[in-house]
Amino acid sequence: MTDADALLAPAPATDGGDVGIVRPQDFVCKETFKFDCGAEIPEFTLRYETYGQLNAARTNAIYICHALSGDHHCAGRHSAEDRKPGWWDNIIGPGKPFDTDKYFVICANCLGGCRGSTGPISPNPRSGKRYNLDFPALTIRDMVRAHARLVDHLGVRSLAAVVGGSMGGMMAIQWAIDFPGKVRGVIGLATTARQSAQAIAFNAVGRSAIMQDPAWNQGDYPPDAGPNVGLAVARMMAHITYLSNKSLDSKFGRAKRGQASLPAGTNSGDAAGHFGVEFEVESYLQHQGQSFVNRFDANTYLYFTKALDRFDLHGPDGRLDDAFKAMTARALVVGFTSDWLFPKEQNQEIAQAMLRAGCRATYAEVTSDLGHDSFLLNSPELYALLRAFLAAEKA
Amino acid sequence: MTDADALLAPAPATDGGDVGIVRPQDFVCKETFKFDCGAEIPEFTLRYETYGQLNAARTNAIYICHALSGDHHCAGRHSAEDRKPGWWDNIIGPGKPFDTDKYFVICANCLGGCRGSTGPISPNPRSGKRYNLDFPALTIRDMVRAHARLVDHLGVRSLAAVVGGSMGGMMAIQWAIDFPGKVRGVIGLATTARQSAQAIAFNAVGRSAIMQDPAWNQGDYPPDAGPNVGLAVARMMAHITYLSNKSLDSKFGRAKRGQASLPAGTNSGDAAGHFGVEFEVESYLQHQGQSFVNRFDANTYLYFTKALDRFDLHGPDGRLDDAFKAMTARALVVGFTSDWLFPKEQNQEIAQAMLRAGCRATYAEVTSDLGHDSFLLNSPELYALLRAFLAAEKA
Repeated sequence: MTDADALLAPAPATDGGDVGIVRPQDFVCKETFKFDCGAEIPEFTLRYETYGQLNAARTNAIYICHALSGDHHCAGRHSAEDRKPGWWDNIIGPGKPFDTDKYFVICANCLGGCRGSTGPISPNPRSGKRYNLDFPALTIRDMVRAHARLVDHLGVRSLAAVVGGSMGGMMAIQWAIDFPGKVRGVIGLATTARQSAQAIAFNAVGRSAIMQDPAWNQGDYPPDAGPNVGLAVARMMAHITYLSNKSLDSKFGRAKRGQASLPAGTNSGDAAGHFGVEFEVESYLQHQGQSFVNRFDANTYLYFTKALDRFDLHGPDGRLDDAFKAMTARALVVGFTSDWLFPKEQNQEIAQAMLRAGCRATYAEVTSDLGHDSFLLNSPELYALLRAFLAAEKA
Repeated sequence: MTDADALLAPAPATDGGDVGIVRPQDFVCKETFKFDCGAEIPEFTLRYETYGQLNAARTNAIYICHALSGDHHCAGRHSAEDRKPGWWDNIIGPGKPFDTDKYFVICANCLGGCRGSTGPISPNPRSGKRYNLDFPALTIRDMVRAHARLVDHLGVRSLAAVVGGSMGGMMAIQWAIDFPGKVRGVIGLATTARQSAQAIAFNAVGRSAIMQDPAWNQGDYPPDAGPNVGLAVARMMAHITYLSNKSLDSKFGRAKRGQASLPAGTNSGDAAGHFGVEFEVESYLQHQGQSFVNRFDANTYLYFTKALDRFDLHGPDGRLDDAFKAMTARALVVGFTSDWLFPKEQNQEIAQAMLRAGCRATYAEVTSDLGHDSFLLNSPELYALLRAFLAAEKA
């Protein structure tokens, strides 16, 4: 659910070139958009990026769906000075698994997002003020339906693949379900057909931290004074769930930062000394919380986590198979052994239900110590799976 | 780390009688107490309860160490109207594993606590105001040293066993290390010789939630207006770590509460409707957070979690064995299969290091789906282990 993380990730092994300098674009859809909840907005914008060229047949597109905290910028740099490239730059580029010499790669900030697409921070055309909580209740299906408008706008006839990890995996699978004529392949990574009670519980605590921050003010806060404390706490906690116990131990263990430990003979009256950041892992989480506040909107966090919690492909009878009855796409679902947020069993369950529904589906398991975020990190094993899946399609 | 929980726990199977109505007592120690950090306080109080009778030889005492959110009231009721008995009533009583017909059972609220013993909410005799953050930095060893004064005060010559789960397990083991002449048996349940980076990380997020709540005010808050929001968030998050994924799924799954789900056609402007408590598991956590705020002090939470994070029995060379060189007590360490906060491997590690150090130690593993809190809940398997360990001592 997170961006690739400089502290935990080794520099991704590039087995290909870079897409270079990229420029985000805006797709402004002037048509009414109707949400699953019944509410409508008169228009919306999706900010997106593309890499590579659409072929003459308009059939070589790969659509990338980002995770909770991601955005449209998944490859290349916006300027030569950018410290980091897009969040999936290790996978997208000339000669890389999503090979921009062959494929036209598209990624958009989701509807409801805060990175250029229409969401709670956008002006409500009806009032001229920010939507905030007047933004309609949002589902994964809503996000996918908005993506589909962009794909039509770009003239894509069919998608070679829709791909995503975590929340992005939910969207990718929903794409294949809702637009069977449009999607030839679907790849879901570290995802689930529905969240466990534990995953809902973690999201609920995050929302509680945000909504109980006085600065949240029932969602009605000015752009520069949101519930930063609550959002940082939510992010710190969530970040723990993206990593494995083992990866935290091997990276940080119980290492301490400098002189934070209280010297003998000192009283503890100095709160900063006794309760301040003492262990490296604390410092790391503080940094994660702060940097998230600088780039993310608290209301979007509420809308996205709620969409995650409500996502459930199981039918009223508890069966998952029926969700895939109309699906025609080939499917690859990948679980990561150390992912405890969306455990491998939940990924396997998706592929098995697809198979029972008569789909061409494969489950693959990648051994990794890096937890849920494994799908974002350097993994030759994952790269090989992605390459093989794309290559297996008859031209 | 938690109290037994009515929602998750089946009514404990009582295989014995009750201790009946009990009355807490205060041990006021008028001697200076020196902390590991070097600071001193001129006196301290420990609130405690006892069950059963000390024998003439003064050798039949069992000392119970409570976990993070526990207190001295572990058996019986304070009045006939009490809704719930003490937190370990399933284990302590006539004919129960800690049989009060045979043993004199003692439990005290830890030094630093907020349930009657001296801690941050107590008046500082030097200033007449609450200690708050002028309370000295606290370690597990400090808590044990204060307990030892109580045991002397009660005239106990030696302890048949010191027992505890989670933080209580750390204390029990520290007892056996620091007072080898006093402790004949030690039982550590769901505990660890040092916390993992992940466990520290969860505590750090909890502290962050508290310390960033404006009501915390650098620890200087009035009794009736503490950082309740931060403390509730900390507790909600921590509570997830006390339970297993499986137990949450089997108890709550994705069940929803009444009509909280947003009806189609409704806009989401009603924050309470869209982001309010929707799933049963959310409701459960909210309840946990609120009830905790009503009985716990935020500064004590900071002091206790910091003591947990700093507890580390490993030597500077990383070896654990040397910690047990002087220990003479028999030891039983019990891990629970679904405990992911202090996993069974961390419990096993303690027993193995004790064995390597030449101690009489046993590791036992209890199969349970209930996570870290398993040690508090009804478990005939655990009861049998406790009975057998106590019975194995030659009288």
